[in-house]
Amino acid sequence: MPQHDPSDLTLELKASLLSGSNFWSTKAIDAADVPSMVLVDGPHGLRYQDAETDHLGVHSSQPATCFPTAAAVGSSWDPEVAAEIGAAVGREARAVGVTVSLGPGVNIKRSPLCGRNFEYYSEDPLLSGLLGAAHVRGLQKEGVGASVKHFAANNQETDRMRVSADVDERTLREIYFPAFETIVTEAHPATVMCSYNKVNGVLASQNRWLLTDVLRDEWGFDGAVVSDWGAVADRVAALAAGLDLEMPGTGGTTDAEIVAAVRRGELDEAVVDRSVRRVVELAKRAAPPTGSVDVEAHHALAKRLAADCAVLLKNQQETLPITPGSTVAVIGEFATEARFQGGGSSHVNPTRVDTPLDAIRALGTPVSYARNLDDNAAEIAREAEVTVVFAGLEEADESEGYDRESIDLPAAQVELIRRVAAVSRRTVVVLSHGGVVSLEGWHDDVDAILDCWLLGQAGGAAIADLLYGTASPSGRLAETIPVRLQDNPSYFNFPGEQGHVRYGEGVLVGYRYYETAEVEVRYPFGHGLTYTTFETSGLSVTPTGDDSALVSVTVTNTGPVAGKHVVQVYAATSAGPVRRPARELRAFTKIALAPGESRTVELELGRRAFAYYDIELSRWVVAPGDYTVQIGENAAVVVAEEQITLVGDVIRRELSLDSPVQDWFSHPAVGPVITRTLEAGMTAEHANLAAESPDAMRMVASLPMKQFTHFLSQSGLHLSPEALADMIELSRS
Amino acid sequence: MPQHDPSDLTLELKASLLSGSNFWSTKAIDAADVPSMVLVDGPHGLRYQDAETDHLGVHSSQPATCFPTAAAVGSSWDPEVAAEIGAAVGREARAVGVTVSLGPGVNIKRSPLCGRNFEYYSEDPLLSGLLGAAHVRGLQKEGVGASVKHFAANNQETDRMRVSADVDERTLREIYFPAFETIVTEAHPATVMCSYNKVNGVLASQNRWLLTDVLRDEWGFDGAVVSDWGAVADRVAALAAGLDLEMPGTGGTTDAEIVAAVRRGELDEAVVDRSVRRVVELAKRAAPPTGSVDVEAHHALAKRLAADCAVLLKNQQETLPITPGSTVAVIGEFATEARFQGGGSSHVNPTRVDTPLDAIRALGTPVSYARNLDDNAAEIAREAEVTVVFAGLEEADESEGYDRESIDLPAAQVELIRRVAAVSRRTVVVLSHGGVVSLEGWHDDVDAILDCWLLGQAGGAAIADLLYGTASPSGRLAETIPVRLQDNPSYFNFPGEQGHVRYGEGVLVGYRYYETAEVEVRYPFGHGLTYTTFETSGLSVTPTGDDSALVSVTVTNTGPVAGKHVVQVYAATSAGPVRRPARELRAFTKIALAPGESRTVELELGRRAFAYYDIELSRWVVAPGDYTVQIGENAAVVVAEEQITLVGDVIRRELSLDSPVQDWFSHPAVGPVITRTLEAGMTAEHANLAAESPDAMRMVASLPMKQFTHFLSQSGLHLSPEALADMIELSRS
Repeated sequence: MPQHDPSDLTLELKASLLSGSNFWSTKAIDAADVPSMVLVDGPHGLRYQDAETDHLGVHSSQPATCFPTAAAVGSSWDPEVAAEIGAAVGREARAVGVTVSLGPGVNIKRSPLCGRNFEYYSEDPLLSGLLGAAHVRGLQKEGVGASVKHFAANNQETDRMRVSADVDERTLREIYFPAFETIVTEAHPATVMCSYNKVNGVLASQNRWLLTDVLRDEWGFDGAVVSDWGAVADRVAALAAGLDLEMPGTGGTTDAEIVAAVRRGELDEAVVDRSVRRVVELAKRAAPPTGSVDVEAHHALAKRLAADCAVLLKNQQETLPITPGSTVAVIGEFATEARFQGGGSSHVNPTRVDTPLDAIRALGTPVSYARNLDDNAAEIAREAEVTVVFAGLEEADESEGYDRESIDLPAAQVELIRRVAAVSRRTVVVLSHGGVVSLEGWHDDVDAILDCWLLGQAGGAAIADLLYGTASPSGRLAETIPVRLQDNPSYFNFPGEQGHVRYGEGVLVGYRYYETAEVEVRYPFGHGLTYTTFETSGLSVTPTGDDSALVSVTVTNTGPVAGKHVVQVYAATSAGPVRRPARELRAFTKIALAPGESRTVELELGRRAFAYYDIELSRWVVAPGDYTVQIGENAAVVVAEEQITLVGDVIRRELSLDSPVQDWFSHPAVGPVITRTLEAGMTAEHANLAAESPDAMRMVASLPMKQFTHFLSQSGLHLSPEALADMIELSRS
Repeated sequence: MPQHDPSDLTLELKASLLSGSNFWSTKAIDAADVPSMVLVDGPHGLRYQDAETDHLGVHSSQPATCFPTAAAVGSSWDPEVAAEIGAAVGREARAVGVTVSLGPGVNIKRSPLCGRNFEYYSEDPLLSGLLGAAHVRGLQKEGVGASVKHFAANNQETDRMRVSADVDERTLREIYFPAFETIVTEAHPATVMCSYNKVNGVLASQNRWLLTDVLRDEWGFDGAVVSDWGAVADRVAALAAGLDLEMPGTGGTTDAEIVAAVRRGELDEAVVDRSVRRVVELAKRAAPPTGSVDVEAHHALAKRLAADCAVLLKNQQETLPITPGSTVAVIGEFATEARFQGGGSSHVNPTRVDTPLDAIRALGTPVSYARNLDDNAAEIAREAEVTVVFAGLEEADESEGYDRESIDLPAAQVELIRRVAAVSRRTVVVLSHGGVVSLEGWHDDVDAILDCWLLGQAGGAAIADLLYGTASPSGRLAETIPVRLQDNPSYFNFPGEQGHVRYGEGVLVGYRYYETAEVEVRYPFGHGLTYTTFETSGLSVTPTGDDSALVSVTVTNTGPVAGKHVVQVYAATSAGPVRRPARELRAFTKIALAPGESRTVELELGRRAFAYYDIELSRWVVAPGDYTVQIGENAAVVVAEEQITLVGDVIRRELSLDSPVQDWFSHPAVGPVITRTLEAGMTAEHANLAAESPDAMRMVASLPMKQFTHFLSQSGLHLSPEALADMIELSRS
């Protein structure tokens, strides 16, 4: 069959390809070999709905494996976990003929209150980017396209269709863009999904700087840009800005707007052709369903991966793992009604669900159970050797579409924990929730805390394994657990007001703020315990050029059991003209070690590990100077560090008449010239004045040269325009 | 002699009137009866220099009385103090023929690090505005024009010629503008001085929104706008924006630029004429010198006012006042070399200086003195009944032109205080400094702290009177003393970088932040002790309309001596769509009471006391709802409060196709209509879908109506453009 060039189609047909045919599908044009494709939600599991019977996209979806949510995957600190989830979702998507799985979500957790945090990985851009890239690679190697979302600065649900994220460019470049940039440049996702919100006043869907200048021209993105569902306010403006495919369909309304704009000469048809090419290229990935997947194998995978995600926050007196044969009391409704995913568009209809209580009982251990204090919770806790309380947030407490107003556990749960802990010999709390929850009010009452986030449908079985040591906890916090909600640096600027949210904390997001401001936290970013111990030794940091280095460090499992350790490499500096966070995560790797085993790992720190984004030069700059490379047990505890000096970038800052006086006098070439020129014209009175007024000289240091020449001329000193022009020329050479 | 209309002059002559003739003077045009006028620095004392011999403006000035600096006046909480200083400076200005005294400075103390904080009153706009207005009234009734400065958002010295203060409009309107607004609307200053910096990217000197839209059109300013010295980068742009007089002169360069712009048709000559009229009107205030002033009377006044400014921070076991006849050790170099003013353009050449040690000895009390630990400080402290340590910042530590990097006292002084306190029976610390200093590291070691800020040339005598009870301390902190510098809300956004400073804390400046975030401080805004005690009773708050109230409260001096008390009225609310600070100062008055005396004061709270600035409506709005009116001992301690309900403003928010779905359904008139319209078109399937998907309904709540109609049409439900237009019309009626 001959290939058709879509640009041969009529304008009306071309325009029709740039929006959905319904909620989840695009239009087919058989005559041009353009198939329809299906795009569905699915970062941690496919949400495939029968389009024929569900025009509004709200019906229950087909059963699919619900894997750990992104919040849990973030805590794994393991790109392999993300990749395996991506691949499994890809297989399930292929099975039903889905072309694009909408995910991963890599927005930064700016505030713990964001209702959609369970769908995002971390407060750190490096961790988010590397996990997201792994997910995309895993998904796309199965033949299903990814849709990295939500681009950009979509860090809240409140007023999300309208709010302008007012963010300075350095902050966008250093915090909110890098995860997208890493994924685009390293994993080549089929699509990028624009967000609902405005960025600095311009809707993301109509933001040419975002969708074209940065995404395509700078990062080289060559896929299609898809709108978030309903994000397009002005179809023609969106298309011109670089938004290719509008979803869902609009019944032809906006297709007609495109046609009319071209006819009126307001939109170049070449813009239409370009987007049509991108959409057609994407649609040609569409393939018939491959049939069934191995549901049991995917469930087993979901369980294995879940075990890598849970974070052991606290474990006094080796309360965990529970000694086999101990009498155990299990308390809390989440033990029998597992909380394992969040609400909203990512909600998966699971193939099956393991509840923690069943899983614990399946291990053959004697267990009593009480749902809450109205049951006999205190009584069974008093009699057991170990009490395990299941707590967390209800599904309705957090979801796409709205933000939380508090990070507290429900008061009834706090009371349950405290009352039970007061009578238990040993108390373990297992937490299930999407967004961070506060541990205040009960943390010190309990012996162990296992933070499970939302572990997916097999989370119950994974929890049982972790409690009894069949599996070993290895997760690390991907976001800080603060002492108080108002300690969060975004607190007073979240979620904004009257259509604007000010990113007032700048780059000091999450641990970057807590560590820089020396604000006490409950548990820092990167924290997580294991059932064994690790020792770090032999750090060496070697510059590998003007702006890069190689880190080598040895980790030894010094404890009694196997375990996994996360090597966290941070960089710190005060070099350059911008304020840097106390430290920033610049590389990490997770390694499994048998008892007594030792391994030396090497991690490369490229130029971006040391760079800041310079808004005056509009590019990344490595400032010449000293850099401290640190191995962190977490973001708060440095276990080894070494300082290196980098040559960095040579920046030539040219002088102009607007440059301050001090820049002229301190310029290596111009300084001596201007000093000589002025001294030649000075009288004794001038010299006396200068000598008696160091204060005045300090005050004029910041005057632009233009105004300074006026000051000088008042006193009979003159710098001719020609002399100044020569000096400006000199500064350029 | 006939009156000449300056607009009859040649364009060249007119343009020449719009810049100085030299550093401190403007040009005269005798033929048009336009005199030269002199403008000199002088908020707390005249800095008059002989223009003939000082072209650069750096020579020592003529002797003048140095009154308490603005930081001290702020602590007086007494507009009468500001008014008396204004009047005295006015008399000294008239004496030497000065037409405009450059001041007061009413920039808000955003960061304790600002090098020029000693020239500003407070972190609170109400306190700054009422003190500034009093200063202007005092000055101008003596026939000398004021120049309220620096307009606007000039809250740092670092990079001050270039930095853009990036501030959202609500914050400008609620925090950084009100002091200027109050002074302009209530005290009618002859001039306003524009600042050096940019405001949201546009130089204040070229900022039409600032200099014309807000200052003249909204506030009704009818005087002349003067540039800060050297603030004009583009003379023509500045003139067009509303900057009338450029200072200092530029030797004719910029006058010629104006002429050329008019000739080229780029500038309307009417703009030149308008500014010429303003400058000529101002110059006609010029008057010949009146001769001498009563220097001794002004010194006595400076002493009396200084005593009203000092703040007694701490006074354990009634260490102060010192019992007459006690043996006293005086320690510290500031006891003999008084620190009483700051550096930079406001530096006054005092007529005389009272040093604290001389003043204490003049009281006839037995005093030993040691300069520091190298002297016999510890020895004399051990022997005395009371030790008074004079500490603070050196003049070089703070000045116009640069910011501080720390709020610590010099380490040597901290050591001196601690070593002395360790051996003293009673230790009093007297602090002299312009910007806030930290009390950490020694606060708990001493018995009393008298914070004097910079009290002017008679401060030494005032301090002696306060220490011995001849005068009674009555100052209150006009800015918070934090525990740690980094607790300040601007800390991580000060002083900015790469040409921008982000006002990330928004309206939460100073106590507004500390109280809202519940951050512990060393001493709160409004704190200050006296030698007596006061009791507050009988608070009543009565609405006097839809948006105003009358506060009545009784204060009784319940202690043994006379004293002054500051009644502080704060308002608090959560009404309206914006986040409000925990409380905001809305009225205050300082009253003197004899022992046992009781007085009932009434304070009016106008609409602005309850309003926020609505950026969507571009105006002040009093939200309907509950307001708590509080009497604060200071910003942290409420001694009485009463809640009122205000009718507030009725806001009609019209619907559009961009309005979110929830606004349509919750609209009182439109809601029922759209519900009926939709229900009429629903099938049983639609009804089922809606019933089973409350979650989905919550997710579409924020969708703009335009996109929602697309979603609806996907499911066969239609809202016609005509029906929507009718509903929009309905929302307007």
